[in-house]
Amino acid sequence: MITSLVTGGAGFIGSHVVKHCLDLGHRVVVLDDLSGGFEDHIPQGAIFVQGSVVDDVLVTNLFEEYKFDYVYHLAAYAAEGLSHFIRRFNYNNNLVGSINLINESIKHKVKCFVFTSSIAVYGAGQLPMREDMVPQPEDPYGVSKYAVELDLKAAHEMFGLNYVVFRPHNVYGENQNIGDKYRNVIGIFMNQIMQDQPLTIFGDGEQTRAFSYIDDVAIPITNSVNIPAAYNQVFNIGADKPYTVNELAQVVSDCLGADLKINYLAARNEVMHAYSDHGKAHSVFGAGSGITLKEGIARMAAWAKVVGARKSKEFENIEIYEKLPQGWEKKNTTTTAVPA
Amino acid sequence: MITSLVTGGAGFIGSHVVKHCLDLGHRVVVLDDLSGGFEDHIPQGAIFVQGSVVDDVLVTNLFEEYKFDYVYHLAAYAAEGLSHFIRRFNYNNNLVGSINLINESIKHKVKCFVFTSSIAVYGAGQLPMREDMVPQPEDPYGVSKYAVELDLKAAHEMFGLNYVVFRPHNVYGENQNIGDKYRNVIGIFMNQIMQDQPLTIFGDGEQTRAFSYIDDVAIPITNSVNIPAAYNQVFNIGADKPYTVNELAQVVSDCLGADLKINYLAARNEVMHAYSDHGKAHSVFGAGSGITLKEGIARMAAWAKVVGARKSKEFENIEIYEKLPQGWEKKNTTTTAVPA
Repeated sequence: MITSLVTGGAGFIGSHVVKHCLDLGHRVVVLDDLSGGFEDHIPQGAIFVQGSVVDDVLVTNLFEEYKFDYVYHLAAYAAEGLSHFIRRFNYNNNLVGSINLINESIKHKVKCFVFTSSIAVYGAGQLPMREDMVPQPEDPYGVSKYAVELDLKAAHEMFGLNYVVFRPHNVYGENQNIGDKYRNVIGIFMNQIMQDQPLTIFGDGEQTRAFSYIDDVAIPITNSVNIPAAYNQVFNIGADKPYTVNELAQVVSDCLGADLKINYLAARNEVMHAYSDHGKAHSVFGAGSGITLKEGIARMAAWAKVVGARKSKEFENIEIYEKLPQGWEKKNTTTTAVPA
Repeated sequence: MITSLVTGGAGFIGSHVVKHCLDLGHRVVVLDDLSGGFEDHIPQGAIFVQGSVVDDVLVTNLFEEYKFDYVYHLAAYAAEGLSHFIRRFNYNNNLVGSINLINESIKHKVKCFVFTSSIAVYGAGQLPMREDMVPQPEDPYGVSKYAVELDLKAAHEMFGLNYVVFRPHNVYGENQNIGDKYRNVIGIFMNQIMQDQPLTIFGDGEQTRAFSYIDDVAIPITNSVNIPAAYNQVFNIGADKPYTVNELAQVVSDCLGADLKINYLAARNEVMHAYSDHGKAHSVFGAGSGITLKEGIARMAAWAKVVGARKSKEFENIEIYEKLPQGWEKKNTTTTAVPA
């Protein structure tokens, strides 16, 4: 029997990967600290271990106990824009945590290590982004993801550890945490509409992204371990067609039957346009599902209506407050009264 | 009065930077955990704090207390070849430790953050290495150094933190730890000669490096904070002329008056040839000292004869033993007797 570890398996993409692994007949162990995921998102049949990839003793023990064939590493704190303000947390969680898994995967001769990186590794280079470009990440989140990619390559060269790296972008769909105010614009929009708030957009809303439905990402990720041509390769993965954030706001409002109301905030330090070439992924994994943005958003909206709105969680340990974008400040719980 | 922090100030390059900073009239605080350095290498007049850059509380308190104008960050565990086997330690020490300093430098508006990176960031690309090449590091040490470079660039873009990055290579000279068996081939050779052992060379000894005398590295590093043209730039720094390790073995033996004896070991996974273009550094910092390899080695040999041979320290926490190069295995203290 094939045994797979899925880190972040209670999270958005991870929970879908767990489902597809179970469909392939794998025994699946989920490692998740529930910082961004939810236990009730973990599909029935998976073994759940609550904990963090940063806990190296726990990681070591899991590998000893389960002798994993495959590792799908999806655990990360994926708030790219926030990473400037939580540098230490970012590198510890996203890089050192990954290294704990790579170490054990080397020692236990895991057959393939599947890593979800990000288009954040590219930086603001030429478009469309292609895998043969040399990445130049521009924020701590992208730097940490790229460092893991490079470390996996070094681990392959030195120890023969096989890997597959995916660089998904702007993924949305059922099970997304719509209560996270720092990331996932579609989830944020849905949450705002269901709380009858205007949609918040940083800048003028003309920034573009190719929003990607979950099936076009989670299915290739899961199947990659069975496709030798994918081994030791890097793949962009996701949708081809970019939309502006303003267009997206219209689609989300339509799907939830709400009038379009937007609150424009000061622009953030972020890449203006981002879309990827997926020719390489299509040649290895086949064409995508063909699900359009409207179809995908409609599916997610139907799910979100059932789940309902969730309260945003505040990130507790901001390291740098200077230049923290509007709306991301931590609310003071003990404010001093100011005389009127 | 200018106050500077020199991390790794009890180490080899660091102790020279401390000396030159004191010569410039700076008040100098040394932060060093003495893992590779020696307290008696710290020049008189510096304030010594024993501790690690990984200790974020200590780092925070130091910045609060001393309000540094400049940070010279030289602390690192710089055993490139060993980094494959101590991945977690490498990233924690060399990357997360650096991030602690960058965080505080942003918060306290440090005027310039000087970082010693390494030619390890380049990987096995074209020669000579030039600063306008996009790095592609191939081992965890190089990855960690490059990640810090990228993070500094991001910190500059977002918060205006000025930096200067140096990529020195194969530096040698007085105060080098000649008791470290994992790195610094010249120190290793001197230590072996003084212990009347043959010189150990991995592979055939035809790999080439441009061995760089300490003054050609530590003086530009120190002066860089006073040279606006150096700000937010990356510089290769060190000697121009490459030598084979076999040639080096001959020069070191000659300088110490010993016959050449070599013990060739199995080749390591390392770059075969490495030398840098220093045109950019020369245009900003002026020409180097002109000290030849023979002169530099002679100076270091004179110092080493006074200091004497030191016992090698074993690295205590190897994470992966597979493929650990010959001679780097930790000695078993409790060996089982094997019947003859």
